[in-house]
Amino acid sequence: MVFLSERSRNTPPSPIRRLSRFAREAKARGVLPYALNIGQPDLECPASFQEGVLQAASRHIEYAPSEGFLSFREAWAEWCERELAVSTDPDHYLVTVGASEGLVFLFTTCCDPGDEIIIFDPTYANYMGFAEQTGVRLVSLSSRFEDGFQLPEPETIRKHITSRTRAILLCNPNNPTGVLYGEEEVQRLLDLCHRYGLYLLLDETYREIVYDQQPITSALKFATEDPHVVVVDSLSKRFSLCGARIGTLHVPSPELREKILSLAQARLAAPTLEQQAAEHMLRTLPPGSLEALRGCYQARRDCLLTALQEKGSAAGISCCSPSGAFYLLAKLPVENAEEFARFLLTDYQHEGRTVFLSPAKGFYSIPGSGEDEVRIAFVLQEDSLRHAVEILVEGLSAYRS
Amino acid sequence: MVFLSERSRNTPPSPIRRLSRFAREAKARGVLPYALNIGQPDLECPASFQEGVLQAASRHIEYAPSEGFLSFREAWAEWCERELAVSTDPDHYLVTVGASEGLVFLFTTCCDPGDEIIIFDPTYANYMGFAEQTGVRLVSLSSRFEDGFQLPEPETIRKHITSRTRAILLCNPNNPTGVLYGEEEVQRLLDLCHRYGLYLLLDETYREIVYDQQPITSALKFATEDPHVVVVDSLSKRFSLCGARIGTLHVPSPELREKILSLAQARLAAPTLEQQAAEHMLRTLPPGSLEALRGCYQARRDCLLTALQEKGSAAGISCCSPSGAFYLLAKLPVENAEEFARFLLTDYQHEGRTVFLSPAKGFYSIPGSGEDEVRIAFVLQEDSLRHAVEILVEGLSAYRS
Repeated sequence: MVFLSERSRNTPPSPIRRLSRFAREAKARGVLPYALNIGQPDLECPASFQEGVLQAASRHIEYAPSEGFLSFREAWAEWCERELAVSTDPDHYLVTVGASEGLVFLFTTCCDPGDEIIIFDPTYANYMGFAEQTGVRLVSLSSRFEDGFQLPEPETIRKHITSRTRAILLCNPNNPTGVLYGEEEVQRLLDLCHRYGLYLLLDETYREIVYDQQPITSALKFATEDPHVVVVDSLSKRFSLCGARIGTLHVPSPELREKILSLAQARLAAPTLEQQAAEHMLRTLPPGSLEALRGCYQARRDCLLTALQEKGSAAGISCCSPSGAFYLLAKLPVENAEEFARFLLTDYQHEGRTVFLSPAKGFYSIPGSGEDEVRIAFVLQEDSLRHAVEILVEGLSAYRS
Repeated sequence: MVFLSERSRNTPPSPIRRLSRFAREAKARGVLPYALNIGQPDLECPASFQEGVLQAASRHIEYAPSEGFLSFREAWAEWCERELAVSTDPDHYLVTVGASEGLVFLFTTCCDPGDEIIIFDPTYANYMGFAEQTGVRLVSLSSRFEDGFQLPEPETIRKHITSRTRAILLCNPNNPTGVLYGEEEVQRLLDLCHRYGLYLLLDETYREIVYDQQPITSALKFATEDPHVVVVDSLSKRFSLCGARIGTLHVPSPELREKILSLAQARLAAPTLEQQAAEHMLRTLPPGSLEALRGCYQARRDCLLTALQEKGSAAGISCCSPSGAFYLLAKLPVENAEEFARFLLTDYQHEGRTVFLSPAKGFYSIPGSGEDEVRIAFVLQEDSLRHAVEILVEGLSAYRS
């Protein structure tokens, strides 16, 4: 028998990808699931990214610098300035292989094994995988469906800070709840971090995807030079570039940046072509393109909420209205939402269609939480969303009978 | 003050990239260094990769599956079959972000913090970074310049196996020595691994780059289904695709594969475009293209060896002739080769040129080893290599006087 490390045995398979096999099998049977399970936008990426790829395609595909191309980091800083009206230093950014790699770098440099990071349940499921992988203990404070997933009071958070606490990690807007935390809430967390010498790690992957004309929240706006703050980012969602695997870390602390750079040097570099193509995209993006993106997702959110209220309420489905990102958590009248999600893929169809949902349990690290909830990603067109809700309601009725 | 983890404080900056700043400063002064420091081939990648990029460029850049596209893994298995006459199962491969990510996955799944991996000094410097990052203790057995860097006897290796030993890691052909280990030597290591329940991790990044018509060594040929064996691979060197960041792991053990897949799922995916472009490349690569590559590097090796013998011997430089990869270790008549390498960048020039070498110390994990050695990457054309040796010899004379 071969040895398997304890940490790898403890790393959970992705709750988002766990049911994929059943979806593939459904397709093989001729049943097409509406993919509401994964944050894979159906929208096209900007045309200028494709142009950038065509321009960059050459026969010299050399290593990028470990910290990322300076010209890409300059283009990124300029783009942030245009969008957020903040001036950031290109040298404070490190380019990573998606936000994922950036988070693993942070868990590794901010924590030794056994050290703690405070998170707010429910949140991005893969934080748990990164924590197992790096030996970090996540201390989860729950935010509740019934309260619209608001953050706990600073006093409650304070009680969970120990001598091993190194950071507070917030995904904002939050995946899977779609809650947007405002500047004051982030500032309250930052005050705690200052008081106790912690890092505030802000995953701003969905930053510009906010609804109802709310202002964008970003620590880049008010803590640009704060050595306690790291902003984690990614091209994946706002530019529909999930497969490009380009993220950034904004790290004002020179000491921390140097340590992350050592890890980055060991893995050599992030992909070259995508940095070059994204640089071209960022420099030539027409103004207002994110406005259009927000409008599109907001219309989908509204359509989904309406469908859920009209058809779902009577069937016992409740949900919180998201103020950002493109996810919504729904509470279903079932005991085990994962079993129901599997049922939809394995034992149900309506005229050749079914629905692929993400059980929300995987986004909670407090055991027993979210058992009756699912995450719905509104990454399909409105007609599809309406039809998917109809199928969900009918599937629910079939499941319960 | 912000906290920095002990493991990040212990992660060494890349010895290969540490002097880069001085090279940039030399360039800024108008002194152009011959870049013999980094394994960045100057050769073009296959034209079919560029074609593949142009074909794959689209406005839908979606996540690849976490294990990599099946069609890419099939193309890779077919290509391995053509090159090595072995049949491998596409489902035994996992696609990684370069060999680097594959190695971090292996260190994490094969070892818990404090567990040990046996390596042979000198070897690829970044193994040390990966070990610090993952809490793995590298147990280094030295191989000696004077013996042509042959592996220790099995009996010597056996004495270093403890209850915490999980694996033996071999880079073959080895970076930085250029030594190719034959099938019998690998088999001897495998016998030990079977006897003590260890993994044999084989980094075959340079597999096809071997000289003098020697047969290619690959564990894929004789341990295809062995659950103790993992072959780590990368497109970077043999296809001059360093910036593509695509590697593979061949993992026959279903249990280990499942655990690596959980880590792979947490980071979502390797880049999409490069997998698609590389698939096209692998399917359309003209026969004999690696033969041409070997011929090119062999001519460079011979040119470098001749220049070092003709000009370098009298100056006190000695070296081992590499049988694979594109590196050569040279012993210099200096006490501190790093100081000399820095001198060449900061205080020396010959008609506007100098030489950028990698101090070999960073490739040794046994302290005090390799202090007077440098690694020379022969990734330049023959005229440049000859000129670089002349400058090296003159620089040496200037340094010593």
